[in-house]
Amino acid sequence: MHKLAQSVLAYIRRNDLLRPGDRVGIAVSAGADSVALLRLMLDVSGELGVVPSVVHLNHQLRGAESDADERFARDLAEAHKLDFLTESLDVKAHAAEKKLGLEAAAREVRYELFGRALHSGVDRIATGHTLDDQAETVLLKMARGAGTRGLAGIYPKLAIDTPGSTGLAIVRPLLGTRRAVLRSYLAEIGQSWREDASNQDLRHTRNRVRHEILPRLEQDVNPGVCETLAETAEIARAEEAYWGAETSRLLPQLWRLDEHGGILQLKHFASLPLAIRRRLIRAAAEAVGLALEFRHVEEILNQACEGSASMLPGDWTVARHGDELRFQKASEEVTDYQYELSVPGRIAIVEAGIVVEAIVINGRGSPDRYTPQHLVDSSCAQKQWLVRNWRAGERFWPAHTKEPKKIKELLQDRHIIGKKKQRWPVIACGGEIIWLSGFGVRRDFQAQGNHGILLRELEGK
Amino acid sequence: MHKLAQSVLAYIRRNDLLRPGDRVGIAVSAGADSVALLRLMLDVSGELGVVPSVVHLNHQLRGAESDADERFARDLAEAHKLDFLTESLDVKAHAAEKKLGLEAAAREVRYELFGRALHSGVDRIATGHTLDDQAETVLLKMARGAGTRGLAGIYPKLAIDTPGSTGLAIVRPLLGTRRAVLRSYLAEIGQSWREDASNQDLRHTRNRVRHEILPRLEQDVNPGVCETLAETAEIARAEEAYWGAETSRLLPQLWRLDEHGGILQLKHFASLPLAIRRRLIRAAAEAVGLALEFRHVEEILNQACEGSASMLPGDWTVARHGDELRFQKASEEVTDYQYELSVPGRIAIVEAGIVVEAIVINGRGSPDRYTPQHLVDSSCAQKQWLVRNWRAGERFWPAHTKEPKKIKELLQDRHIIGKKKQRWPVIACGGEIIWLSGFGVRRDFQAQGNHGILLRELEGK
Repeated sequence: MHKLAQSVLAYIRRNDLLRPGDRVGIAVSAGADSVALLRLMLDVSGELGVVPSVVHLNHQLRGAESDADERFARDLAEAHKLDFLTESLDVKAHAAEKKLGLEAAAREVRYELFGRALHSGVDRIATGHTLDDQAETVLLKMARGAGTRGLAGIYPKLAIDTPGSTGLAIVRPLLGTRRAVLRSYLAEIGQSWREDASNQDLRHTRNRVRHEILPRLEQDVNPGVCETLAETAEIARAEEAYWGAETSRLLPQLWRLDEHGGILQLKHFASLPLAIRRRLIRAAAEAVGLALEFRHVEEILNQACEGSASMLPGDWTVARHGDELRFQKASEEVTDYQYELSVPGRIAIVEAGIVVEAIVINGRGSPDRYTPQHLVDSSCAQKQWLVRNWRAGERFWPAHTKEPKKIKELLQDRHIIGKKKQRWPVIACGGEIIWLSGFGVRRDFQAQGNHGILLRELEGK
Repeated sequence: MHKLAQSVLAYIRRNDLLRPGDRVGIAVSAGADSVALLRLMLDVSGELGVVPSVVHLNHQLRGAESDADERFARDLAEAHKLDFLTESLDVKAHAAEKKLGLEAAAREVRYELFGRALHSGVDRIATGHTLDDQAETVLLKMARGAGTRGLAGIYPKLAIDTPGSTGLAIVRPLLGTRRAVLRSYLAEIGQSWREDASNQDLRHTRNRVRHEILPRLEQDVNPGVCETLAETAEIARAEEAYWGAETSRLLPQLWRLDEHGGILQLKHFASLPLAIRRRLIRAAAEAVGLALEFRHVEEILNQACEGSASMLPGDWTVARHGDELRFQKASEEVTDYQYELSVPGRIAIVEAGIVVEAIVINGRGSPDRYTPQHLVDSSCAQKQWLVRNWRAGERFWPAHTKEPKKIKELLQDRHIIGKKKQRWPVIACGGEIIWLSGFGVRRDFQAQGNHGILLRELEGK
């Protein structure tokens, strides 16, 4: 057995990638890494008791070159008397249809092929990802902002969903091996491969990282930077596994789905360490199909006040109500809404993306805390206050207008249209609309002097 | 208040950096960042209720330039009627004396000055580290291999030991602010600063990261890479705090110090998640003053067998004995040692950095598993076997020698000298030395045929 094959064998065993009897479909593109993978797997398959075959996807991206890649892979399979499974799929068309980038489309198509191979009797797919790929991935994810989660990089083994089963399916036996070592090995055993010109194309971000940034880090900072990044990935993977287990354990105790989204109980949550709280917020959001950025997580964690709310992507809001954080998706349907506002008090109007606050001003407050047109006459204080959307035909009298106008027209004048317009909030008090969002307090309900109830509209945060 | 000062104020409050009444020594080098820090702190000090002063260290590294920096800082303090604390210290001499690099020496000297300032009535030292410094630090640590721990980067607040107290002492109010923003601010308020030419010197790794690698990542991968790296640091800090707390909670349950180093109980340890086990191994090592690299941690974790051992830096070994992992430092003093070896069995000789294994060979084993000169006659099997260092005057008869020789001479011939020589292991059986490390089984005790006890010497792993 070749010395390199011994080290690959040790990697496979240490990471428990294959079991005796496994039929392993080796993904051979025709490039150096995958060709080396095939030859190394042939060398170790006896010792491991596994049966290799070749799987090839013709991406049809480079015309005659792609066809030549396919022939190369087929010849290689035949030379070693291995089963050969190939499919020719139009990745470009798939990308156009699914509105994906080429890389993402190629990935989808590839995984579909892997899925079919796994369904038709192959137990594992082995891919030729190397330690260099790992280092590039970690650096890319790090730079793009995947937090500590992205540092896990490429996994040595990966479960993918295939029709009929979910389970471990893809393995990367070369993830501990440098690309250069594979090329020396191929030269040594006299095995040719095909170069893919697109690997040199510096328009691709990964290629710039590979050919320009990593070499510079190797030269300027640490000659072993690739191994170091791969080590970091290994550390991060174990930590991710830990966080995943902790989150799965804790989330069900604190979180339940409801018809609007879900509710997180804050009572015990607040005493958990920050790192866990961040993970739980993220996991809760994921449970309703929402991918949060770090700043969203921070915004939600900082929601200390009753009634404060965060506006999130995809029309989602998270609002605090007492000891609960409510994740809600604004309905696509425009629905009427109505909430009671206690005075003094504060309420989040998730439908409109704002928070309204009512503060009692007794004349002693600093005058720069409010403008008088936001001050409601104290006589309203004893009545019930309702925050709701306006209804057709309702009128409002803004501060600097001679007479009341139709709310419909006031909003149109400000170019507020569509659903936003229909959901626009007002406050009604004793049957009268006394406040219109963006317009302040109704002219004939404004306080005289500096006693009254201040209505403040806060950004949804 | 300037808009930038407002954002710095918010950062200080969010991170709880200062308390009302604090006397804050602002570390002013005369460079843009620290000068901006001073001006911004003056702007927010009223609102925060803190009293700023200026602390300056003259590193004496750049002759007249260093003196001009000091004058600049002094003038700035006088112009704003602030107390000025300065010291002039020969960093180069300190570096030579302590055998440190210039950067590390400057850091030590600086922290000593901070310590004296804190001792003489200053409550906090504020330094001008920026978001750019944070991004550089994270990238550097990442590339150099600090695992996920290094990603925590620069802390917004830091406790340092000062004579008489340990506690929060250094704060970085600008850690959320970009360097370029500080320069615009200085230009806007008409405040000059002094450029330090050494910041442009590309012989320094940090400067290459600053001027070459980060700009390339900004251009090629993510224009917001600095903010992204700073965010990663924030996430990592909270995770580090978590791991620190978990480790502090678990370590005392599993670990105790003893006269040789310490002992880790494996019984419950083995059921803990990998991420925690890695942290515990590292923390245990730190408890005896040993800084482990990732590969050492992995080596120790993989010590599944009784008697296997890892050789670590600084003459440390970790060996497994039953349900214990023993961290031991080979004594500087040469001490005699003696262990019983059960047959069959295996034992780690931490004093010599090897593992010796005794295997019973019954003639049916594959002949390539051993060479006959390592096979001891079966007649020894019933006696007590002792592994120990040799004693003055003892003799040994190697396989291909006509007659026994003094062990002292045998070792000298192989250039084995000093403590290593004194600790060299032998195996005694029934009062006779039957094996000498590196020389195999004594000629007249070798087995005839293929029955006997195989003695194998393994690398300390």
